[in-house]
Amino acid sequence: MIQINEHYTKLQSSYLFVEIARRVEAFQQQNPGREVIKLGIGDVTRALTPSVVQAFHSAIDEMASDQSFRGYGPEQGYAFLREAIVASDYAPRGLAIGADDVFVSDGAKCDTGNIQELFDSAITVAVPDPVYPVYVDTNVMAGRSGAWDRGRYQGLVYLEATPRNGFVPSPPAGPVDLIYLCFPNNPTGVVATTDQLARWVEYARSNKALILFDAAYVEFIRDPNIPHSIYEIPGADEVAIEFRSFSKTAGFTGTRCAYTVVPAKCTAYRADGSPHSVRDLWSRRQSTKFNGVSYPVQRAAAAACSRHGRHEIRQLSDYYLENARIILEAMRLIGYSCSGGQDAPYIWVDAKGAGSWDLFELLLHKAGVVTTPGSGFGRCGEGFIRISAFNHREKVETAVEKITSALR
Amino acid sequence: MIQINEHYTKLQSSYLFVEIARRVEAFQQQNPGREVIKLGIGDVTRALTPSVVQAFHSAIDEMASDQSFRGYGPEQGYAFLREAIVASDYAPRGLAIGADDVFVSDGAKCDTGNIQELFDSAITVAVPDPVYPVYVDTNVMAGRSGAWDRGRYQGLVYLEATPRNGFVPSPPAGPVDLIYLCFPNNPTGVVATTDQLARWVEYARSNKALILFDAAYVEFIRDPNIPHSIYEIPGADEVAIEFRSFSKTAGFTGTRCAYTVVPAKCTAYRADGSPHSVRDLWSRRQSTKFNGVSYPVQRAAAAACSRHGRHEIRQLSDYYLENARIILEAMRLIGYSCSGGQDAPYIWVDAKGAGSWDLFELLLHKAGVVTTPGSGFGRCGEGFIRISAFNHREKVETAVEKITSALR
Repeated sequence: MIQINEHYTKLQSSYLFVEIARRVEAFQQQNPGREVIKLGIGDVTRALTPSVVQAFHSAIDEMASDQSFRGYGPEQGYAFLREAIVASDYAPRGLAIGADDVFVSDGAKCDTGNIQELFDSAITVAVPDPVYPVYVDTNVMAGRSGAWDRGRYQGLVYLEATPRNGFVPSPPAGPVDLIYLCFPNNPTGVVATTDQLARWVEYARSNKALILFDAAYVEFIRDPNIPHSIYEIPGADEVAIEFRSFSKTAGFTGTRCAYTVVPAKCTAYRADGSPHSVRDLWSRRQSTKFNGVSYPVQRAAAAACSRHGRHEIRQLSDYYLENARIILEAMRLIGYSCSGGQDAPYIWVDAKGAGSWDLFELLLHKAGVVTTPGSGFGRCGEGFIRISAFNHREKVETAVEKITSALR
Repeated sequence: MIQINEHYTKLQSSYLFVEIARRVEAFQQQNPGREVIKLGIGDVTRALTPSVVQAFHSAIDEMASDQSFRGYGPEQGYAFLREAIVASDYAPRGLAIGADDVFVSDGAKCDTGNIQELFDSAITVAVPDPVYPVYVDTNVMAGRSGAWDRGRYQGLVYLEATPRNGFVPSPPAGPVDLIYLCFPNNPTGVVATTDQLARWVEYARSNKALILFDAAYVEFIRDPNIPHSIYEIPGADEVAIEFRSFSKTAGFTGTRCAYTVVPAKCTAYRADGSPHSVRDLWSRRQSTKFNGVSYPVQRAAAAACSRHGRHEIRQLSDYYLENARIILEAMRLIGYSCSGGQDAPYIWVDAKGAGSWDLFELLLHKAGVVTTPGSGFGRCGEGFIRISAFNHREKVETAVEKITSALR
């Protein structure tokens, strides 16, 4: 009998964005004439940049001729892209990440979801709360949790991000083995300081734990004192994997390219305590279950890493950050306490004692603006909403005016 | 302590293509002037077709403008592509596969590798021998095998494909739960008849087993009596998943697009014996760990499904099949018994009592032609080599002349 993986039955239905869509549709049916502005989902809205478009077209022309056609590429990604990534993102910050440490993929969602396969099913996993759901669900599917119980899965360790700790959790008192961190954070928009990250690296080194550092939003950091990479902390290359993406930086959410850095020194352990290379495991996983990213997409991504490409991309993130500034300023002016919105494209709004869904409903009905209820990201998200800066400027300005009139 | 997935340590190093590359390099160093023609790896060599190229370019132009830009797409693939696939590949054969049964992905390797996650770790898995290594390795990584022992993993059931059964194994006497089949077959090039597939469907229905049917090479079938889809067998929609790819059909090995069909009726079981939808499991897996295929790639793939696109693609497969015919005829003329090469791009050559590596070496040194030793695909591949028809015509003609002079 072909028996299913029973762990899948523990998963809660991913109701959040479905429920949002349902409520928005109901609102639109009741108010057919009213404009609805979506600041809910974290998806970019602006076109690919000229350098990227040119390289993308040019690679397709290569594929259109027998002489320059390319078939299977290396599973890890072409050297031209891995080298461009190192030259663009690591070498300028003095970090000794090599092209062999970089694994190109079709998305940070895939990589953060697949990485847990490398580890034993009995390890203890720590996830932030509020959290990007992929970290949690993929571990539930792999059997590393118990049942769902009052908003949490038994067996997982939740790292609470609350106003008390400035939404940056400290390492737990007891031992955990695999730690998911995300800075700049989705959904809270906060960044972590060098000292805060150093405490996590110290914890991982002392406990033989491994940090999975999701830096998908690194391009939005403007504060010069905030580290861009976990590898800016000495010793992190032995205890951390870093995930990055072209999605939010270069507008690749529909084009699909990301990468994962696994330094040569990064170490896990066999049951007998002997060390084992994590990079070798990931290399084996990727070469067995993945066939590399589309060649034209890799050329497009490499263009985003070029000097001119980086300049264009900076303008993209400047644009979204200006949106974030406008939202943040407006929400504070009408008396809402907020985090994020400065080095990140998300603003995390304290609902002033109201429930997440209450403020969501208020903004939808009074202002016609769609946000994301914080409770959808975990128990600690209750009482907050997330506002996304990913939209066109005029839409953001209109949304802010409507929110201000509605809530002032 | 972050402990590794110990099952990875059971994996044998994927020596086959590495070892081939090593021997070819050594040969070239010893014989610097001699031409080497590669008929080893199964990778296409001809350019993307005009319809595909045009749609690919056009989609990038859409991404270059804010007004027509697309961000995240549906994880399952855009409806335009899923509908084009049904209209191109299933509806014309009278099969009731719907667009909701189709899941677009970036490769059949990923899908055939990931699909096993849906099932319990204690199920019994049957794989062909010789085999596409992904079927085996992904189950080893998931803990469904014992140790490597004299060329096989303990705990897996091997379905032997030999001259005695015409390289089409029959269902085993005992019960197995998950069955990997591949027709047209890689590496043997054989196809399965309706009767042969019907026996497998009957077996799966009787044993509550599930068939994973890899049809990546379906485009090469010319014999009108050979089924193109497992769903041509009545009742297969309840017990089979089908994998298809644009790689070998439309020359997408470097462009990356494939799809998996999971019919609504396809059923697995919970521990208590109650039925569970496999499509729901795969949908959940893909929406959790995958973010859809690049939008321009999906447009390119849809163009390959159009009437004109299909005509172009037919010319591509005709070209490779003519290569196969040339190779097959030549090998038979010089007295080698072969299978495949008629409805498939691979010719499986019986080495006439020599070892796989012996014939490989002979062809490399005497003819300068690279093939693939059959023993690399499993114990039953010993004594065979695989010759691939994926190369330019002139190269194939030269290779065949050299082989003929060397072995005649």
